[in-house]
Amino acid sequence: VENALLPGEDIMPAFTLTDTARNLWTDGFHLAATDLDPSASPSWAIRKQTLHGGRRAGVDLVEMDNGLLRVAIVPTRGMGIWKIQTPAMTLGWHSPVADGPVHPAHVNLWGWGGKGWLDGFDELLSRCGLEHNGAPYEEKVVQRDGSVSHTVYPLHGRIANIPAHHVSVHVGDGPTPELAVEGHVDEVRLFGPHLRMISRISMSVGSNRLDLRDEFVNLGDQPGDLQVLYHWNLGPPLLEEGSRLVAPIKVMAPRDARAVEGLSHFDVYEGPEPGFAEQVYFFELLGDGPDGRTLVMLRDRAGDRALVLRFAKRQLPCFSLWKNTGGLKDGYVTGLEPATNYPNPKPFEKQRQRVLSLAPGARHVAETTLWVLDGPQAVTRVETEIRILQAQAAPTIYPKPVEPFAPED
Amino acid sequence: VENALLPGEDIMPAFTLTDTARNLWTDGFHLAATDLDPSASPSWAIRKQTLHGGRRAGVDLVEMDNGLLRVAIVPTRGMGIWKIQTPAMTLGWHSPVADGPVHPAHVNLWGWGGKGWLDGFDELLSRCGLEHNGAPYEEKVVQRDGSVSHTVYPLHGRIANIPAHHVSVHVGDGPTPELAVEGHVDEVRLFGPHLRMISRISMSVGSNRLDLRDEFVNLGDQPGDLQVLYHWNLGPPLLEEGSRLVAPIKVMAPRDARAVEGLSHFDVYEGPEPGFAEQVYFFELLGDGPDGRTLVMLRDRAGDRALVLRFAKRQLPCFSLWKNTGGLKDGYVTGLEPATNYPNPKPFEKQRQRVLSLAPGARHVAETTLWVLDGPQAVTRVETEIRILQAQAAPTIYPKPVEPFAPED
Amino acid sequence: VENALLPGEDIMPAFTLTDTARNLWTDGFHLAATDLDPSASPSWAIRKQTLHGGRRAGVDLVEMDNGLLRVAIVPTRGMGIWKIQTPAMTLGWHSPVADGPVHPAHVNLWGWGGKGWLDGFDELLSRCGLEHNGAPYEEKVVQRDGSVSHTVYPLHGRIANIPAHHVSVHVGDGPTPELAVEGHVDEVRLFGPHLRMISRISMSVGSNRLDLRDEFVNLGDQPGDLQVLYHWNLGPPLLEEGSRLVAPIKVMAPRDARAVEGLSHFDVYEGPEPGFAEQVYFFELLGDGPDGRTLVMLRDRAGDRALVLRFAKRQLPCFSLWKNTGGLKDGYVTGLEPATNYPNPKPFEKQRQRVLSLAPGARHVAETTLWVLDGPQAVTRVETEIRILQAQAAPTIYPKPVEPFAPED
Repeated sequence: VENALLPGEDIMPAFTLTDTARNLWTDGFHLAATDLDPSASPSWAIRKQTLHGGRRAGVDLVEMDNGLLRVAIVPTRGMGIWKIQTPAMTLGWHSPVADGPVHPAHVNLWGWGGKGWLDGFDELLSRCGLEHNGAPYEEKVVQRDGSVSHTVYPLHGRIANIPAHHVSVHVGDGPTPELAVEGHVDEVRLFGPHLRMISRISMSVGSNRLDLRDEFVNLGDQPGDLQVLYHWNLGPPLLEEGSRLVAPIKVMAPRDARAVEGLSHFDVYEGPEPGFAEQVYFFELLGDGPDGRTLVMLRDRAGDRALVLRFAKRQLPCFSLWKNTGGLKDGYVTGLEPATNYPNPKPFEKQRQRVLSLAPGARHVAETTLWVLDGPQAVTRVETEIRILQAQAAPTIYPKPVEPFAPED
Repeated sequence: VENALLPGEDIMPAFTLTDTARNLWTDGFHLAATDLDPSASPSWAIRKQTLHGGRRAGVDLVEMDNGLLRVAIVPTRGMGIWKIQTPAMTLGWHSPVADGPVHPAHVNLWGWGGKGWLDGFDELLSRCGLEHNGAPYEEKVVQRDGSVSHTVYPLHGRIANIPAHHVSVHVGDGPTPELAVEGHVDEVRLFGPHLRMISRISMSVGSNRLDLRDEFVNLGDQPGDLQVLYHWNLGPPLLEEGSRLVAPIKVMAPRDARAVEGLSHFDVYEGPEPGFAEQVYFFELLGDGPDGRTLVMLRDRAGDRALVLRFAKRQLPCFSLWKNTGGLKDGYVTGLEPATNYPNPKPFEKQRQRVLSLAPGARHVAETTLWVLDGPQAVTRVETEIRILQAQAAPTIYPKPVEPFAPED
Repeated sequence: VENALLPGEDIMPAFTLTDTARNLWTDGFHLAATDLDPSASPSWAIRKQTLHGGRRAGVDLVEMDNGLLRVAIVPTRGMGIWKIQTPAMTLGWHSPVADGPVHPAHVNLWGWGGKGWLDGFDELLSRCGLEHNGAPYEEKVVQRDGSVSHTVYPLHGRIANIPAHHVSVHVGDGPTPELAVEGHVDEVRLFGPHLRMISRISMSVGSNRLDLRDEFVNLGDQPGDLQVLYHWNLGPPLLEEGSRLVAPIKVMAPRDARAVEGLSHFDVYEGPEPGFAEQVYFFELLGDGPDGRTLVMLRDRAGDRALVLRFAKRQLPCFSLWKNTGGLKDGYVTGLEPATNYPNPKPFEKQRQRVLSLAPGARHVAETTLWVLDGPQAVTRVETEIRILQAQAAPTIYPKPVEPFAPED
């Protein structure tokens, strides 16, 4: 829980695309480098469009292009990141959901036994939370009159299906200005959570680095729970047979018996295998400095290309790896998941003190930096960096599910 | 159950904003006094806009301004009244839902154990019903094959989240014409209810009085249940420490043990208290004449300002008071709730004959008049009026929950 | 499971109205015979509009008029057919849902105990499926941690509430060209079904015949279930007291005790009777040739008018008749339902091998031809055709529910 700059302290030129408080919304928006400076080079652009047709009807899409990365942000889906296009590849995955991004009106979180979230799941980044995330669970409640009712807390929570009520675009100064998209998403209801996420997604022109900074504010009068998990999902081309997760591991524990089956090569990916049942591994990573700065990398087999996520254990202490190397059509995908918790049902996490409690007015900040690496030198440099962190301690690899990570069988 | 004027008998100038039967809808509409009479004074205006952005995208909002009161009506949310602006204050409340009015597509009534209604709850007036209202309840059903299934009847029913399929605007004659917005909302499905609500919200130019007349028609071939509760919700400035409910009480019974805790001052409000658990009181009021004309008033501490609701016990025999004086941010609010029933689960109400049955073609009319009082004289006059009604009988105040109002502990 | 023409082999002039893959959508479209040939006669037209207002807001409606039949197709509701207007009558029914077609955002399939589908049910043709169809059922699941959860498979499945992500219009050559509307609807999710329906609805100019051709493709890497039921719903004027179902019957079995009550006149309709409880009959029909070409007819009392459905048992082996002759306002309607299965809960059907399994890449085609008959000669000709088929064997009429059609009491 940290202090944060107030939004008003931002002094960059800003364009508001949506602000329900002022009854403001724009159907389309386009801003390019040459609009601000006719001689600008390199080029960049930010574009907002409203999508139409099928299950995407009414979805706002903001594309931010810094000349190297083109980032597609979906304010209507809780500021998720749909895809990132690089000169060499598309970061994201091939979901069976091929007509997305899906408007939340077509996602019934309580459908399919609390797994309706999957109906809209097709993004590079889906945030999970904020009142809860992880596996769905059902509570049985005995009412005052003796009757029984059931409350379902659905898979991965609500945040990825709540439209932002404020969206703005910001452009910094200088020859390679910072470009930013900011979105505010409220997860609130009477007698329920009272959380606002202030999300800022930014990058400098020409850079291979994307910054994601989320501030989670308890707007309420009482302490409130917070769980947030960053579900970064990657398929081909970065994911292929022989791709590797590289990470500085303090402890790793398989989630369940199925994960144990893949234990010997948990950090290496197999090729597509139709019907492959997901394997999930829970990690405590090694980090650096008081904040526990750490990083994980997904690299391709050749070590030519990689995606790196950098974050701080102080903000996101838990890391989960989701290996779902099914068939190419059904979803050959892996999830890299820095989070405040492991994606077990919330009661399990709460008992193990992995649910944050925000005091009234308090905020928790979670920052993640995404780097797109091109070329073996870049990949080797990060492998070296991770090796140095790993030198702090030999990794503890548990051969089966253990507390406090997961239920022991 | 009463006869009503047929819509066709209306001879005022009318403007149809929505009529699905004729495939008619207007994105925007504006009509002002001077459009009809260039010399008109005082001024009035009626404006319709379609909202965009966030969870309000696609919501139709009709604002009716009589020069004194500006009433914001939401056809998309079952003709709810979002707010009323007066020269002195805003009537309504500060819900955690700050980005409303919320489109029904973002409200899953069956979410959160049948309490998903709260995701869209931010209005001055939310109607509850029509097939049922009150607390959610779950029915266990044994199927023919022996399997078990569960049916949930969600909190407060469906009507507040059904868009009107017909919306029209009406303007009367004379120097201070009557302004009216009419909306038709169907709560229907095969094998289910077959109810139409014809709602008319009207006021004369310059008046401090708003008339709400709802006609509930059974369009079906068989008798059908009807429950309707008017959830009028008020926060600051009218609600403050020392605000009072003034009402002519025949009987009052606390809903449960929690309400008993506040029994000594059930009619006086405390200041905001984060975490305050709601207290609900059920009333039978005293009334006048064959229809049982009655009224309730919420007045501020000083007795300078008040809101009065007038209605008839013959139409709305039950009155509930919801005290929810939590923190200012979480929802410091009280509900004044004239209704056909108390907001217990429907089976409880049905056993106590508090669910109306409408014969095929029959209709039930419920009229409520809202008055905005400004100044101590106006408040005192209404207090006197209520005192005179109270002179009919001393109030019976039950010290604990009693039948037939609520389950006895 | 059959091979099908690839979409690309279509050489007729085509107009794409929606294609999310190319981010393409048109708000409105109109094409008439004279746009392509100024001297064209007879006339035809195809029109697309986006509906507004009420629960239909955002619904795409395509109307195809061949000069004789005007067919209203709803891409937003899974390519359902809302109504067909003929010179003599409207084919369809008077649902309590009078403000449709209803946008899926207002249909919660999991509401009302898994019967929320009824909230949007107002069409001449609603398809049921594709992962499952039939009566809702609830599965009790014991989780790994010992907790219990419940998964509901809702009534009639999802397909009728999924918007098409591709819609195109096709016009053939010649003096009486073929007109066609094609729509693609995906029922997909990670860990779930991975089915695409490619639906083509076509007719020749001036013809009384409508062709419906649906191709169901398993886009996934694993075998997948398929159930599809064509819920053709007809009310007055074709349905009246004395209307008859005419069909070549091999076997007929009543669904349950309620159906037994009407057994003596299962093929004849009674007049409207408020409160009439539905009766359902399951049929195996007689057919012709290797594909088992068969047909059913609904004719009016006088034998002047009729609707005929032609299909092949190889594609749609099961036929169900839904008699729901309730009051005229509540829904006086019958359902003619060619299908891959009977509308029992899926587990029952699966145990009896009536759920198709599609191999990866495989497809199942279901073709139905609808004929509108005007005049006694046309009706008599079809009766004769059916009598000839019936000559193959005397019908077996079971007096009570029997396996494998329905649970025996």
